[in-house]
Amino acid sequence: MASNFEYPKLNPDWRPQGFRCAGIYCGIKESKRHDLMLIVSDHPAIGAAMFTTNAFCAAPVLISRPVAEAGKFRAVVCNSGNANACTGPKGLENAKKMQQKAADTLSVAPEEVLVCSTGVIGSHLNMDAILGGIPQVAQSLSDDGWESVVAAMRTTDAFPKYFGATFEIGGKTVRLLGLAKGGGMIHPNMATMLSFLVTDAAIEPDALRQALRDAVNASFNAISVDGDTSTNDTVAIMANGAAGNAPIQLGAPEYKEFCQRLETVCIVLGKLIVHDGEGATRMGIINVRGAESDADALKAALAVARSPLVKTALYGADANWGRIVCALGYSGAKVNPEKTCVSLAGHLIFHDGLPMEVNEARTKAGLEKEEVPIDIDLGTGGEGKATYYTSDLTHEYIQVNAFYRT
Amino acid sequence: MASNFEYPKLNPDWRPQGFRCAGIYCGIKESKRHDLMLIVSDHPAIGAAMFTTNAFCAAPVLISRPVAEAGKFRAVVCNSGNANACTGPKGLENAKKMQQKAADTLSVAPEEVLVCSTGVIGSHLNMDAILGGIPQVAQSLSDDGWESVVAAMRTTDAFPKYFGATFEIGGKTVRLLGLAKGGGMIHPNMATMLSFLVTDAAIEPDALRQALRDAVNASFNAISVDGDTSTNDTVAIMANGAAGNAPIQLGAPEYKEFCQRLETVCIVLGKLIVHDGEGATRMGIINVRGAESDADALKAALAVARSPLVKTALYGADANWGRIVCALGYSGAKVNPEKTCVSLAGHLIFHDGLPMEVNEARTKAGLEKEEVPIDIDLGTGGEGKATYYTSDLTHEYIQVNAFYRT
Repeated sequence: MASNFEYPKLNPDWRPQGFRCAGIYCGIKESKRHDLMLIVSDHPAIGAAMFTTNAFCAAPVLISRPVAEAGKFRAVVCNSGNANACTGPKGLENAKKMQQKAADTLSVAPEEVLVCSTGVIGSHLNMDAILGGIPQVAQSLSDDGWESVVAAMRTTDAFPKYFGATFEIGGKTVRLLGLAKGGGMIHPNMATMLSFLVTDAAIEPDALRQALRDAVNASFNAISVDGDTSTNDTVAIMANGAAGNAPIQLGAPEYKEFCQRLETVCIVLGKLIVHDGEGATRMGIINVRGAESDADALKAALAVARSPLVKTALYGADANWGRIVCALGYSGAKVNPEKTCVSLAGHLIFHDGLPMEVNEARTKAGLEKEEVPIDIDLGTGGEGKATYYTSDLTHEYIQVNAFYRT
Repeated sequence: MASNFEYPKLNPDWRPQGFRCAGIYCGIKESKRHDLMLIVSDHPAIGAAMFTTNAFCAAPVLISRPVAEAGKFRAVVCNSGNANACTGPKGLENAKKMQQKAADTLSVAPEEVLVCSTGVIGSHLNMDAILGGIPQVAQSLSDDGWESVVAAMRTTDAFPKYFGATFEIGGKTVRLLGLAKGGGMIHPNMATMLSFLVTDAAIEPDALRQALRDAVNASFNAISVDGDTSTNDTVAIMANGAAGNAPIQLGAPEYKEFCQRLETVCIVLGKLIVHDGEGATRMGIINVRGAESDADALKAALAVARSPLVKTALYGADANWGRIVCALGYSGAKVNPEKTCVSLAGHLIFHDGLPMEVNEARTKAGLEKEEVPIDIDLGTGGEGKATYYTSDLTHEYIQVNAFYRT
């Protein structure tokens, strides 16, 4: 991230009622930093979650999927420092034991506990540390333990990632808090992205599920550091109804309000992950419009977001329209070359298929900002649109990813 | 490329009979290096070509496509220093003029002339230089001008790229010579890959076309420097029958011989392009087997070849199986995680879904070579296989692509 980057601090107003949490060091990380956390709702809660689509998904993902499908979880147990991925049947057993221990300690059913891990892959969990740590972290539970929770989720994150919202639903004050980790993928870690969201809103299970899906597509599914999807990626939300509002119904005005808040929180968290991308110095915000469909717009945005040539040009603050146009051309999206337009940092640099004369100095100044808008019209006349957030590709990225072990 | 990299030199035996060629400086490149070339067969010839699939394909590609479809071209005119891409109707007109001038000068029909350009995009060709240069280069035509031809194709290539073969077809000696450029994509250039192949074999048009398609899929379509497909990519072959063999028929034993030779030449040229990838220090040769289909194997190989995490690990000579496995997992190919195996530089490092104990020192020594085999079995029991060649991702790549203009 840029050295002067200012990330949001935890706002106490975001803390939802009826949740307690804590993070501690239990003995996994060599650095002796926090590595185990627990979040629990005092009351039964509902939950929804989305997981990595990687075929080599980790043991905790396999254990947590049915929990999320049932949709009635009220607790999350998560360790950092070890991803429990590529660990075979023993890894699965360990994830199950972790879930059972958390359930026993909290006096809830194992089906109410989501299990997550992040860190090194291919090594077995230190189960003494985990099983000893769970009762310990349970003793530390409090309603303001969120900073220790985020600390226990971190691997190579340069800063903690929170965002939240406080708003009214049916005359009641509702709180929504989101936590995230990501950006770190140091050997043999993966680029695991974890995000946990907690709210005291009352909401119907199908509404919660749909709201999460839409918010994730607009945020965590629209960010690219290096385009790799890890073995452990998980986004989960729990809602316990402690705010006392009438349960939010799918499609109601309150649902739209809730969705908007959730999307905003997830987009901010997603952008924080990009800002914290390894070696990243700035972010490109790729807005595609004029596509035949949203799916086509996404294809185009993704191709630009993932192009190493675009990402290095972003690093060099270089108004390199050619690389953007090239990526659009091979994206597979339908484009009208004679009507395609590209603006960089608000400066139109490619218009109706032809490069424009640009004021290099003014454009350069815009490109040197922390966030650089890349606005693209595919020129098909269609209404499809998409937004994608990408980090730049830098010397530091290479250094961290090529030579970390030496 | 690695500083001690030894590239093949032009072998005079590869030069096909009945072709003449030359390359000169005509006035396009500021460096005053060669920038215009001509190849022509003394006799009518047949030809086949494959072009970029980029939607923003350059003007010469639009002009050359029907030439290739007709399949009866005997000359190629090509300039470097300017790609004539993103140049609108005027660009198209200029490409047509370039074709017409070459045809007039050589006393052939314009439909017999393929036109290519490589270099900066978004600027109009210097037509005075081109139109004045064509008669000039025609005066220099000779049967041993191939080195000047390759010089006139180069943009940022660090070394000239030739390979060829001399072999027997039906008791006649047949020659095949391939030339290539690629690897350079400096602002606002694109990663244009050009390759021209010339042979004095007699071959049926449909056989030539199929042979080229198969060879390109195994070579130029199986290399990745940064995954970007340029606006100007072109591979073309001309066959003039001067060797005097009976024309090669599709499917005949002679056809298989010809295909094998052509594929070998194209693979060597493709590997030379990867070795010359910007900032590249070594090449990963990704062999995937045990896939349900060849298409699935290709998906898996491509995901590994394009992963920045794999490419940086290759740079760091780091036996990072986790990144390879992760890329396989999100590739979209069907994999059997419990049966997946990965070998790096001949060392089995991941077996049946679990990491192996590895001898770090021995593995490291293998990874520090110029070419590193990455052998993958997807474990489905299927017979699908694919090979892909990828460069590493290095500090030099970032330097060249981010800061070239500064």
